[in-house]
Amino acid sequence: MIAETPQPPYYAVIFSSIRTEVDNGYSEMADLMVELASEQDGFLGIESAREGVGITVSYWKDLESIRKWKQHSEHIVAQQKGRGEWYKHYKVRISKVERDYEF
Amino acid sequence: MIAETPQPPYYAVIFSSIRTEVDNGYSEMADLMVELASEQDGFLGIESAREGVGITVSYWKDLESIRKWKQHSEHIVAQQKGRGEWYKHYKVRISKVERDYEF
Repeated sequence: MIAETPQPPYYAVIFSSIRTEVDNGYSEMADLMVELASEQDGFLGIESAREGVGITVSYWKDLESIRKWKQHSEHIVAQQKGRGEWYKHYKVRISKVERDYEF
Repeated sequence: MIAETPQPPYYAVIFSSIRTEVDNGYSEMADLMVELASEQDGFLGIESAREGVGITVSYWKDLESIRKWKQHSEHIVAQQKGRGEWYKHYKVRISKVERDYEF
């Protein structure tokens, strides 16, 4: 459940969101996006939880792979439905992981 | 629920964790740590959700404020109890937020 990422540096995209009440295929699309993201070049892993706020952190090799995923045609459809129906508010933060440690 | 952070750059500490079955004061300590963190110099905000995996992202002005919070005496006690009782596995990633956008 915790992504097994390589040694830093690599990138983390922190996607924080507040959902609307609308379902309308949300879960299926969320699952599909995880599946599709994991097939992209440069994808390193993903972690996700929702409890009031939803937090999905996806890990990527570099900014170029993040940019390509953002522009993936099926992902663009999901982003449009997200803004139109599923999310009241979201924030995306692109960050460079400089250091990590674990227990 | 989504942290209102300033313009990048700033830092995100991504804390991903898997809990044990042990409660023993976990929720109280978690609440206390959020309260205490938010009083520290350089603290910018926090977001947290648990759903299988727990993800807590705290935002900080710089590496120095992250270092000081890690070494805060009450936080050290919490870290020790975390490793001894509450967490099976956790991973901490220190990352620099370079860009953000929201809807």
